[in-house]
Amino acid sequence: MSEERYQEGLAVKRRLFGEGKEHPLPPGHLASDLLRLTDEMVFGAVYTRPGLDLKTRSMLNLAALTVLGRDDYLRRHLQGALHVGVTPEEIKEILMQMAFYGGIPCALKGLRIAQEEIAAWQSARAAGSPS
Amino acid sequence: MSEERYQEGLAVKRRLFGEGKEHPLPPGHLASDLLRLTDEMVFGAVYTRPGLDLKTRSMLNLAALTVLGRDDYLRRHLQGALHVGVTPEEIKEILMQMAFYGGIPCALKGLRIAQEEIAAWQSARAAGSPS
Amino acid sequence: MSEERYQEGLAVKRRLFGEGKEHPLPPGHLASDLLRLTDEMVFGAVYTRPGLDLKTRSMLNLAALTVLGRDDYLRRHLQGALHVGVTPEEIKEILMQMAFYGGIPCALKGLRIAQEEIAAWQSARAAGSPS
Amino acid sequence: MSEERYQEGLAVKRRLFGEGKEHPLPPGHLASDLLRLTDEMVFGAVYTRPGLDLKTRSMLNLAALTVLGRDDYLRRHLQGALHVGVTPEEIKEILMQMAFYGGIPCALKGLRIAQEEIAAWQSARAAGSPS
Amino acid sequence: MSEERYQEGLAVKRRLFGEGKEHPLPPGHLASDLLRLTDEMVFGAVYTRPGLDLKTRSMLNLAALTVLGRDDYLRRHLQGALHVGVTPEEIKEILMQMAFYGGIPCALKGLRIAQEEIAAWQSARAAGSPS
Amino acid sequence: MSEERYQEGLAVKRRLFGEGKEHPLPPGHLASDLLRLTDEMVFGAVYTRPGLDLKTRSMLNLAALTVLGRDDYLRRHLQGALHVGVTPEEIKEILMQMAFYGGIPCALKGLRIAQEEIAAWQSARAAGSPS
Repeated sequence: MSEERYQEGLAVKRRLFGEGKEHPLPPGHLASDLLRLTDEMVFGAVYTRPGLDLKTRSMLNLAALTVLGRDDYLRRHLQGALHVGVTPEEIKEILMQMAFYGGIPCALKGLRIAQEEIAAWQSARAAGSPS
Repeated sequence: MSEERYQEGLAVKRRLFGEGKEHPLPPGHLASDLLRLTDEMVFGAVYTRPGLDLKTRSMLNLAALTVLGRDDYLRRHLQGALHVGVTPEEIKEILMQMAFYGGIPCALKGLRIAQEEIAAWQSARAAGSPS
Repeated sequence: MSEERYQEGLAVKRRLFGEGKEHPLPPGHLASDLLRLTDEMVFGAVYTRPGLDLKTRSMLNLAALTVLGRDDYLRRHLQGALHVGVTPEEIKEILMQMAFYGGIPCALKGLRIAQEEIAAWQSARAAGSPS
Repeated sequence: MSEERYQEGLAVKRRLFGEGKEHPLPPGHLASDLLRLTDEMVFGAVYTRPGLDLKTRSMLNLAALTVLGRDDYLRRHLQGALHVGVTPEEIKEILMQMAFYGGIPCALKGLRIAQEEIAAWQSARAAGSPS
Repeated sequence: MSEERYQEGLAVKRRLFGEGKEHPLPPGHLASDLLRLTDEMVFGAVYTRPGLDLKTRSMLNLAALTVLGRDDYLRRHLQGALHVGVTPEEIKEILMQMAFYGGIPCALKGLRIAQEEIAAWQSARAAGSPS
Repeated sequence: MSEERYQEGLAVKRRLFGEGKEHPLPPGHLASDLLRLTDEMVFGAVYTRPGLDLKTRSMLNLAALTVLGRDDYLRRHLQGALHVGVTPEEIKEILMQMAFYGGIPCALKGLRIAQEEIAAWQSARAAGSPS
């Protein structure tokens, strides 16, 4: 394993999801090895490539996760998108557009999840959370 | 039907796919009514909304169509992406990132199609085509 | 937007889902614009086309939503199907047949949801609800 | 194996796909055992159940295969649908409706395949083929 | 229906899921006919074929259900896998490998479910349950 | 990048697909960076983990790629499976079983591809190819 690339991956995750939110699983979880590998391989080796900035990468994920119907993962990446500066209006436009590529059901489901996450994010901001 | 919104949709398609490429089907085709409707409702009513520019919308489609494995449609939207200014490098980054959300097979397939479309686009440019 | 087509769409939704059930979301929801558009475009412009009656269109949706595994949406369209006269026996046959096209898991999941919705519908009928 | 149910399945396939078209594979093919089993269990045990007639079952398959994007299988079931009396207009409506549940790309692809199959079927009829 | 093949199917299910766990649904459930059919057709006619042992068949199902994202069914087949001798380490490897074919989201979701099922299975064993 | 892990990945690919078949793309291909990364991270870091042998990993891939309907990739992994010692009978059983999890269409398609690849592999062996 490359420790350097792993550390770069963690740095990307902190920028995307927020300080302290880069480890979504407790230690010893069955998924830890996979997460360790993707931290290095995806966040460390792919997200750090030039050619696309982090906000654009985040928006692309929202599109993909919506049409794939991966709700849990979409929820986490919506949190990341809001943190990295994708606006609620942009989120709405992304998910609305996906209705025509992945079907209306996946877009409506995504918009329901986004409604919840945007509300939580706005509450946290109003409460003075650094988020 | 709203003729005005339909004309706006055709204008968007000309910007996205190029002049003269907004009608991909011969008249009388079984899919013509669906295409007429989507020209109006998707390209006319959704793509014209503020909040996302056309290049960003095009990039989001590449992400979605790659993970969905809709190859024919991906090919057409790759042509659109190149026409609207998405660079070959950006296309590569988008499809590469999708490997981790939709699986490596869909990304490799998408990159093979993109390789062909980028070569065709570069040839057309070299030949002085207005493309 | 075409107000006339939108009103036709709402009328179709009342026939399909029942009086007062055509608006599944509170006003101001992030999905409202998409719903407004699909009310007009799908229920207003497509469901009103001759060639297929509403009961047949409802049955086709059950087939599609089952193999797509869109459970929330399947539940709502099961309610619509029962309202528009698709019988519990027909629902069972549709979902059972889908096992062989979309896989047994999606059909079993659909049948579990249908079991719940049919029971709720029968209770409402027994209680004299106009449903 | 139940020989009786298998024969009933073959009879259903002759009604659906046409006389002499119930065996789509040469003997000894790797898929023969699966086909033998599905002839008995799907066409023999499921399609023969009361509750849905063959034309309705055929229409449901078009919906499911379109949103699943199983093109080869959709083509064969389009041939069956035309043979069992689903009209070209009904096929168009089914596939058009699916655009909103499975996405526009799957519906456009389905309509392209249907255009070809309807043309072939009309030619065969014009040539006096018993179809 | 073939009573003999059905009984063979139930015997396979007892071996796979455990004694008394071969009937996951109450009598009269809407899915009972489909389950009866699959007991005979899948567990009776397919799982009893030579060429693959039951443990291998169980592992293949984990792979397929993970990439399909059929969570409920994956959970039940994880229980079966543990019962039939697939080790927690093997389960982890199977699901981790799937990340690269079906995408990381489906693998992470599968590993979360597996974490729960392995913990429940270990508790039951510690408590002296015959499992 | 870790050169050592990359070399281990190439060694795994030679064992799986055959000597000289570890590089399926010409140099400079748009997919080369993704392939380089997966050679290292998937074949080098995942396939080399203890807990599952290469033949079992190959069989799991056949299951996953069949239900995902990724035909090109399935074809390549069928070649790998035959090379690594999965027998034609085992391939048939794997794909046949998948019919009930991913639907009959994906299994029939997979069996057609497998029929072709097994025939090619048998011809190559009869011709004395080391394959």
